[in-house]
Amino acid sequence: MAQNQTAPDATRRSERSRRAIYDAALALVAEVGYPKTTIEGIASRAGVGKQTIYRWWPSKADVLLEAFLDLSDQAAEEAARGQGGTAGQRQYAIPDTGDLAADLKLVLRATVDELRDPAFEAPSRALAAEGVVNEELGRRFVARLLEPQLRLYVDRLRSAQEAGDVRPDIDPRIALELFVSPLAQRWLQHTGPIGYDYTDTLVEYALYGLAPR
Amino acid sequence: MAQNQTAPDATRRSERSRRAIYDAALALVAEVGYPKTTIEGIASRAGVGKQTIYRWWPSKADVLLEAFLDLSDQAAEEAARGQGGTAGQRQYAIPDTGDLAADLKLVLRATVDELRDPAFEAPSRALAAEGVVNEELGRRFVARLLEPQLRLYVDRLRSAQEAGDVRPDIDPRIALELFVSPLAQRWLQHTGPIGYDYTDTLVEYALYGLAPR
Repeated sequence: MAQNQTAPDATRRSERSRRAIYDAALALVAEVGYPKTTIEGIASRAGVGKQTIYRWWPSKADVLLEAFLDLSDQAAEEAARGQGGTAGQRQYAIPDTGDLAADLKLVLRATVDELRDPAFEAPSRALAAEGVVNEELGRRFVARLLEPQLRLYVDRLRSAQEAGDVRPDIDPRIALELFVSPLAQRWLQHTGPIGYDYTDTLVEYALYGLAPR
Repeated sequence: MAQNQTAPDATRRSERSRRAIYDAALALVAEVGYPKTTIEGIASRAGVGKQTIYRWWPSKADVLLEAFLDLSDQAAEEAARGQGGTAGQRQYAIPDTGDLAADLKLVLRATVDELRDPAFEAPSRALAAEGVVNEELGRRFVARLLEPQLRLYVDRLRSAQEAGDVRPDIDPRIALELFVSPLAQRWLQHTGPIGYDYTDTLVEYALYGLAPR
């Protein structure tokens, strides 16, 4: 959306402003929470006029949404570099090596790293907290930020169904929650430690079940 | 704790005050959120002096913690009545009929009802949201409110291990998250609808696994 509005006259200077605005928005929401974050506060911290922000985004929710999308792009680029990819390479799919357990464990370990990253943690918590009590905002952020990531699991589980590694009657959108939601709840609600052993265990339990085979 | 402090001189009148204070605390946190809820505000809404509150509880976190424990006692009593029990009967265990899947489905269906109860929803969301950004408060409420409920699943899964219905190498504290956390995340983050079919499906997937048997 922002790209479309600014692409014709995009300049290096406006890119710098945009990045400063994202950084200010993420820092501010982490410090004072969503309700007290204002366009004026973001503008002042970013060193731009508030009209600059209003020209690009209709509301603070929109600024924050794009700031998070940008943050998550950066995390994906870093992950791609870590896996020997190049900086511009987005992670648009979960690897499919033919070993479903190994592929899921790899991606969940990367999620653990991301959840522990301080640049990500404070603003993400502030936004998640607001989403719990503000259903409209919560749904909007889930649709734009979380659901596209969950779709990657749906795709990987579908491919596992085709390979015969997941039962054909399983609904992949529910199935992914068996390993994604426990990690999310531990992180959100501080109900337990998160780590690689833990997410590896979730994958094993989900794939092979709790009942004896 | 409050019981110990007031038991010797507990009167019908102080019980009424206590109930009024709980109701005021839950209503206020639902309306204005945790940060803006104050002892003064609770006292004024409950029609008691703030010294009455300070005599019984050291902080607003303590008032709210006990108000929630009381709310959850009431919900458990109602559930016991619904199951043909009596009003004073607390639900201290998950039923053990020998059919693990049926027992888990029954309890998760009751949890769905509780999550949808308006008396429970608004204050619970306000508190859960604060717990996401306020780790000390979050951990305290999890330890007193959530973890005792999760212990009931641990006990039921241990008994299932003894009966040979759950593999002996499974850690019950992690295993329960496969069906509890997906429901929690859908409720907290509005990531999907909750209902009986959904929780039944979680139990089936968790017990029998996603991989073919």
